[in-house]
Amino acid sequence: MSGKELDRVGVMARVKGTDRAPSPGSPKSQSNLRRHYDRSKMHEEDRMASTTPSHQPTPTLFFDTVQGYQRAYALKAAVDLDLFTAIAGGSATVAEIARVCKAPERGIRILADYMTVAGFLVKSGELYSLTPDTAFFLDSRSPAYMGRALNFLLHPVQTEQIQQLAGTIRKGEGPSHTLAPDDPVWVDFAKGMAPMMFPAAQAIAGALKPALAGKLAPKILDIAAGHGIFGISIAQQCPNAQIYALDWAPVLQIAQQNAAGMGVADRYHLLPGSAFAVETGSGYDAVLLTNFLHHFDPATNVTLLKKVHAALAPRGQAVILEFVPNDDRVSPPVAAMFSLTMLSNTPHGDAYTFAELSDMCRKAGLESPHLVSLDPGPESLVIVRRPV
Amino acid sequence: MSGKELDRVGVMARVKGTDRAPSPGSPKSQSNLRRHYDRSKMHEEDRMASTTPSHQPTPTLFFDTVQGYQRAYALKAAVDLDLFTAIAGGSATVAEIARVCKAPERGIRILADYMTVAGFLVKSGELYSLTPDTAFFLDSRSPAYMGRALNFLLHPVQTEQIQQLAGTIRKGEGPSHTLAPDDPVWVDFAKGMAPMMFPAAQAIAGALKPALAGKLAPKILDIAAGHGIFGISIAQQCPNAQIYALDWAPVLQIAQQNAAGMGVADRYHLLPGSAFAVETGSGYDAVLLTNFLHHFDPATNVTLLKKVHAALAPRGQAVILEFVPNDDRVSPPVAAMFSLTMLSNTPHGDAYTFAELSDMCRKAGLESPHLVSLDPGPESLVIVRRPV
Repeated sequence: MSGKELDRVGVMARVKGTDRAPSPGSPKSQSNLRRHYDRSKMHEEDRMASTTPSHQPTPTLFFDTVQGYQRAYALKAAVDLDLFTAIAGGSATVAEIARVCKAPERGIRILADYMTVAGFLVKSGELYSLTPDTAFFLDSRSPAYMGRALNFLLHPVQTEQIQQLAGTIRKGEGPSHTLAPDDPVWVDFAKGMAPMMFPAAQAIAGALKPALAGKLAPKILDIAAGHGIFGISIAQQCPNAQIYALDWAPVLQIAQQNAAGMGVADRYHLLPGSAFAVETGSGYDAVLLTNFLHHFDPATNVTLLKKVHAALAPRGQAVILEFVPNDDRVSPPVAAMFSLTMLSNTPHGDAYTFAELSDMCRKAGLESPHLVSLDPGPESLVIVRRPV
Repeated sequence: MSGKELDRVGVMARVKGTDRAPSPGSPKSQSNLRRHYDRSKMHEEDRMASTTPSHQPTPTLFFDTVQGYQRAYALKAAVDLDLFTAIAGGSATVAEIARVCKAPERGIRILADYMTVAGFLVKSGELYSLTPDTAFFLDSRSPAYMGRALNFLLHPVQTEQIQQLAGTIRKGEGPSHTLAPDDPVWVDFAKGMAPMMFPAAQAIAGALKPALAGKLAPKILDIAAGHGIFGISIAQQCPNAQIYALDWAPVLQIAQQNAAGMGVADRYHLLPGSAFAVETGSGYDAVLLTNFLHHFDPATNVTLLKKVHAALAPRGQAVILEFVPNDDRVSPPVAAMFSLTMLSNTPHGDAYTFAELSDMCRKAGLESPHLVSLDPGPESLVIVRRPV
């Protein structure tokens, strides 16, 4: 091994005895490891004596957090192999599942055990079965099948970007490509995310129903419609509603086929293009802004909300679906954590608090903001109104 | 958009009205979504009436598992920015932490909030502080600092491989490169993993101490020594012990510098090369096999254990450190899940049960296997003896 190679592995200085101050994690600092653990044990005894809760140092959370990437991709492998559908179809032993999944038994055994520990399966003796949630969401024959959502949630544009997170934070902004015209990731989004969004879509349709019921032919604008499930759910619940879906043209193909499949194609209209540029017309009774504002900074959102104001009829309502953290920004967990997804994937996006969203709405002339939690789902609605 | 492009996004058949059976997740099956949820709600009511525990379908586990990859890399970003050390050093507000981490406030604010939700920090008003475990393991000035372990645990050879897991399972075996001579990943392992292994190393030294105490100059063979912490800990606790460390030459450089830093260099000897090929000599009072057998199939392990048998003095002990799942293979969780790490990263590795490890040892002529759990750590010791 050459000196250069030794330098590359970072040991040259120490082998030559030229290091002076022990750098963190160096041999000299490692010789303190035992004292460090012992000191912690002493503190421990102090604490026990004073009846405060005990604490033995453990790297459990560290290790568990690091292994999270493995759990995500193990789940993806199970979905790719259609493991859950095989079990739903009656295969219960490793040999039976392996036959249906067309894979050798060793890998199926290890994956099924892993999915059991991860909470997706139940193992009783040698027999595997699905939990109720797994049967509901991960049997590919289920109407609520979510496996396809992984094509978006684990899309390389997201998973590669997060690996650069320290650099993104130093630079001050994430990439802008997902906001560019016709980014193909939104086709994967539209194809995969409808089942996950179904409960929120039902909640929005339910929230708007009283106001829309009194209208002869209410007009709904669905901005960044994606799979279309939000507008489509309104069309299903309000038989006279006309839906205008705005998104990139290739995405609207998915929304249109969903509208056809769900029997509302004749009341489903397409507005292809950018949410910031398309001429939407006006006089809408409701405008939907679902999972859209989090991609942008507040000033951009005010610009967009002014466009929403102009599109709405007087007394028309805008329904914003968002991950809305509390003012402490660390609760509830999923909404609070969503902020980092935007930090990684967008230039200036964020998960906004209700106070921040209300402020943006008011600056755009929209009033009476109120917050509706969709608990147990992770998102909330913010509903605002255009004044007369 | 051309017909070919439409086909690529998978809608052509349906737009043309030529699809017959609704494929899973298709618009037709999606029109059943509402009925599916309603049916589940009916079951729910049945269950409540019969006083069994209630269950409303929720994709919480699915979403949480998928987001695991993001938590892993958010932690890596915090380590890369040395966020925890900044807070340990007294920075408590976003502005203070951002100044020390040399990064804009927005990203630091979002990352610190995320690390709070993930359990690494505590937030009180606008002030962040470390949990006791974070202070112990993630302050880079701590002797137990584990940040460097991410260079191994999230090494691209591991994280890229897991993304191919379905293919690996179908093929029946993972890659062999980590078992090839001088794979550089083991240098990252040696540089990062010593602090994480410290408690297990202390336990092994403690377990061997009574037997070694009676010897004038006990000889210890440390196979696949890595960072060397296992043999070094014995040398520290047994002042006459001579340690023979076996690993690839570049890895032994790290072990040697650790031995020097911890004051046992004069009793630390290097055996560079393959564990299967190096001439180790014989008459050892103890042989260590730490985190090594899981890389291989049982037959290969028997071959290696025969070599261990030959190296041991009569009544000498072999100490095996492993992730040892129970016979159900789904508990305890970390040991059981480790099997998948080997499925993904090695051709035929596994996490073996105590019964399986005992069987391999007996086939190699080693006897009296007993199991020592290192709880709360995730691993166990299996200690066996060469008969007279």
